[in-house]
Amino acid sequence: MNECLDAARGSVPADRLFTHLSLYNPFTCTWEETSFAVKDGTVVGVGEGYEALETVDLEGARVVPGLIDAHVHIESSLLTPGEYARAVLPRGTTTVVADPHEIANVSGKEGIEFVLSEGSRSALSVLVTLPSCVPATPLDEGGAVLTADDLAEFVGRDEVVGLGEVMNVPGVLNGDPEVWKKLGLFRVREGHAPMLSGKDLNAYVFAGIQSDHESTTLEEGEEKLRLGMYVMMREGSTERNIRALAPLLTPCTSSRCCLATDDRHADMLLSEGHIDDCIRKLVRCGVSLELALRAVTLSSARRFGLDDRGAIAPGRRADFCVLRGSPEFEVETTYVQGVHYEDPGYQTPACPPPVFRCRPPVPEDLAIGGKGIARVIGLTEGQIVTDDLRCRVEDVPDLEHDILKVAVCDRYRNGGCGVGLVHGFGMKEGAIAASVSHDTHNIVAVGVSDEEICRAIRSVIAHQGAMVTVRGERVTVLPLPCGGLMATEPYPEVCRRLEALTEETRAMGAVEHPFMYLSFLALTVIPHLRVTDRGVFDAAAFADVPLFCEEGK
Amino acid sequence: MNECLDAARGSVPADRLFTHLSLYNPFTCTWEETSFAVKDGTVVGVGEGYEALETVDLEGARVVPGLIDAHVHIESSLLTPGEYARAVLPRGTTTVVADPHEIANVSGKEGIEFVLSEGSRSALSVLVTLPSCVPATPLDEGGAVLTADDLAEFVGRDEVVGLGEVMNVPGVLNGDPEVWKKLGLFRVREGHAPMLSGKDLNAYVFAGIQSDHESTTLEEGEEKLRLGMYVMMREGSTERNIRALAPLLTPCTSSRCCLATDDRHADMLLSEGHIDDCIRKLVRCGVSLELALRAVTLSSARRFGLDDRGAIAPGRRADFCVLRGSPEFEVETTYVQGVHYEDPGYQTPACPPPVFRCRPPVPEDLAIGGKGIARVIGLTEGQIVTDDLRCRVEDVPDLEHDILKVAVCDRYRNGGCGVGLVHGFGMKEGAIAASVSHDTHNIVAVGVSDEEICRAIRSVIAHQGAMVTVRGERVTVLPLPCGGLMATEPYPEVCRRLEALTEETRAMGAVEHPFMYLSFLALTVIPHLRVTDRGVFDAAAFADVPLFCEEGK
Repeated sequence: MNECLDAARGSVPADRLFTHLSLYNPFTCTWEETSFAVKDGTVVGVGEGYEALETVDLEGARVVPGLIDAHVHIESSLLTPGEYARAVLPRGTTTVVADPHEIANVSGKEGIEFVLSEGSRSALSVLVTLPSCVPATPLDEGGAVLTADDLAEFVGRDEVVGLGEVMNVPGVLNGDPEVWKKLGLFRVREGHAPMLSGKDLNAYVFAGIQSDHESTTLEEGEEKLRLGMYVMMREGSTERNIRALAPLLTPCTSSRCCLATDDRHADMLLSEGHIDDCIRKLVRCGVSLELALRAVTLSSARRFGLDDRGAIAPGRRADFCVLRGSPEFEVETTYVQGVHYEDPGYQTPACPPPVFRCRPPVPEDLAIGGKGIARVIGLTEGQIVTDDLRCRVEDVPDLEHDILKVAVCDRYRNGGCGVGLVHGFGMKEGAIAASVSHDTHNIVAVGVSDEEICRAIRSVIAHQGAMVTVRGERVTVLPLPCGGLMATEPYPEVCRRLEALTEETRAMGAVEHPFMYLSFLALTVIPHLRVTDRGVFDAAAFADVPLFCEEGK
Repeated sequence: MNECLDAARGSVPADRLFTHLSLYNPFTCTWEETSFAVKDGTVVGVGEGYEALETVDLEGARVVPGLIDAHVHIESSLLTPGEYARAVLPRGTTTVVADPHEIANVSGKEGIEFVLSEGSRSALSVLVTLPSCVPATPLDEGGAVLTADDLAEFVGRDEVVGLGEVMNVPGVLNGDPEVWKKLGLFRVREGHAPMLSGKDLNAYVFAGIQSDHESTTLEEGEEKLRLGMYVMMREGSTERNIRALAPLLTPCTSSRCCLATDDRHADMLLSEGHIDDCIRKLVRCGVSLELALRAVTLSSARRFGLDDRGAIAPGRRADFCVLRGSPEFEVETTYVQGVHYEDPGYQTPACPPPVFRCRPPVPEDLAIGGKGIARVIGLTEGQIVTDDLRCRVEDVPDLEHDILKVAVCDRYRNGGCGVGLVHGFGMKEGAIAASVSHDTHNIVAVGVSDEEICRAIRSVIAHQGAMVTVRGERVTVLPLPCGGLMATEPYPEVCRRLEALTEETRAMGAVEHPFMYLSFLALTVIPHLRVTDRGVFDAAAFADVPLFCEEGK
């Protein structure tokens, strides 16, 4: 420490001096021609006159502090933290605030430890908010239950920065003691309150929840901002909110806005990018680059009380990126703790043991006992909410009306399969199945024949987790052996396999992103109709309901 | 808690509903026609549709969150915390971050406890940063020494929000273990770095010190802001920096700027005001009211990590003020925790016992042994820095050249008196003396005759602390029996006595605010020349120096 202090004073040379650059300063939202000195990974001095063992001439390039993703589920990328880091670091992201909610639903505390430990092996700073809602509802039986006492064991860990998105809004509003015990553990409490408004939103804020990343309209974002919430503008693979929310970001509000990718698949990371992509989109929406940068650097750091990053200033991590000369925001190189980031190559992750304790189903397990007016889940384009449709059903599949069978099989206790009907996948042949199925991550499948559905599910089980397409004899697989959620292959290979799956589902005539829709079909906390391993579930009534309606209902 | 939550949801009535008002929202820097509901002193809901046991119709008035003074020494007002609260609450201030540095120099931990305890008896929220530099320098011998271990005893106390201004800049920069131990106790660390710049400022920021209230020029403020410091624009009785610093406050920087009064006498509080006065001055400098308000509400709260105030929003204290309809910013009424503030009247403070262990000096004690070129302290108008003048001195006083004798007498150990010379007081007759003498608070006096200086000092001792003027036979006194720093009379009476002192010093021909200049003459941490109970002190060389220069120096 004293050597760094001496370097800050200029009485001993720093390790590295970066010169001839235009530095973005988030405290003033301006650029400054300057130099800065780094020692032991930390900025020790900004300004002229420093000396260092090594000088890096950046030839007039623009430099910005390392980008921060304020809320992400790394598991949703289908990559392990190490491969995720390899995908986003070249994009300029140096810190992510990850909520390991998915792997925690599968593997509990062991899943959280996995993300912490894999994160610490990478150059990416993987900070964690602790999953607050495992399982998502008391009715869900996943791989783990995380109590307040379980979470308390993680309090005080260096990388643990707060309580993850509190999705159990009724639990908050009704004063559920276990939920409030979790709230009491942390000063930083992340929210998840889609469409919450008025008095209930006031009560949610009163409970001490300080942020939200679920706003989809400007009005919704404004209401939350006005009540004091940090608004995280989300741009994931299917949840794309930047266009709607961009007008929120003004010079006055920039300290209260962050950006988040939440759920972004590996292929989108590779093709469109990460936070760099969010910045470009904000700028295309008319936000100045300087304000966008403020949100993803200092504002995000301050939101989590991180005084050690978010700016190139004394005492902060020397995480930064050097931009290309292009008019659009493009990262050329990334520096982590003062060192030029070089891809370390693939490293084998130490995944938690897989959990697949289920008997592969046979077509008889998926039989539907009934006819008449059925409850049918209706997909909504570009949304994870579903419609609660009522359709007269004679035969399944009903390809004319695009009604297919969906099955959810318990993967933890061999509890069998629940069956429902879904409209909107558009498949004319084959079946798809996956072990990514929010939030309990059972196995979910949809298809035109029971036989193909069963084959797809059997393939998922055989791979101890996968995304699978079955089309006639053709079986295409992205293995996800890491918790049944993440691939263990290098990320370009994962993208290649995702592409192969996409080709297959297109050949089946399926809607775009069918695996994303599939993965939310069992999510019981989002309206309206869902399917679980017990059968059809009405999220509004919060109860299991029969597939076929009684007469007159 | 659950009842408040229910009130937030609107399922039970709140205590009080404020309606028909225009509310300043610091998250958006805008005004909003709205209502808000309060229960148990806390805002539970903002918006329409709440019900309450009592409704307060504000008839369209503007409402702003309670004002925050980000850095103040209450002792400098010459009032006890209770009387200070009575003076500033009607001005709209509901929170002060007080550094009890003065009383701590006199009474140590007992002095800090006094401020905490008196503060908690008042409606004003008196938060405390712990004095980090008692004594100010290792050379100073005041009434107490506060070690890191002493400060550690206060960590975790509700009202203790951080480490007070770290004035020991050399200690920081040289890695003094005791100073760094103090830095390690707190996450919030307040700075004091007048004119620090360049590498040394970088090193000071590197040490983790996050704020500064000593900037006097725009350039100085900008440099600190750019390096990541919170800039507290100070407007005290003599240190008036708002005009110079106002251009710093922009929409982007408003989250990094606060206002502070630091040292403001009771009479200025009564005549000009408190933070309300700072707001008016900022607005007169061309800053928008909305930005000024942002700085003194949310930004100040966030600087100290206070999520329970700084805005009228759910879960935050219902501290706010209602403005007059006048074009200028004027507070009509103040509400504290939802209750209309009513002056509680005078309450006797429980002061620490006085410390005056000194023998009253006689004129012979103040003799100067020499002639020739002397070091003369030069006052700087409106500043606490002094000039290091060299003057040929034959007789003292030299009224023609405005050179007077200044004496500082140890009040703790009967260590005798040090003598120096000062230019700039302008007095043609009489003497003034005070036991307010930063930072050790010995007795300091200046005057045209040794006899009057001695009489003034004797009067200070007789009152166990006072400000005194002696003009011929006429002795005028403001007794300061509370630690020798604070009056124990009601604040209007204190102002009346201050006015009487001012009349006397004007009659003597003295500069305006002579007691304020007097009180800084012994402050060894501010350049350039000072006087202590040991004699003349060169703050730049950080050493005692002889009054008379050797030839050629």
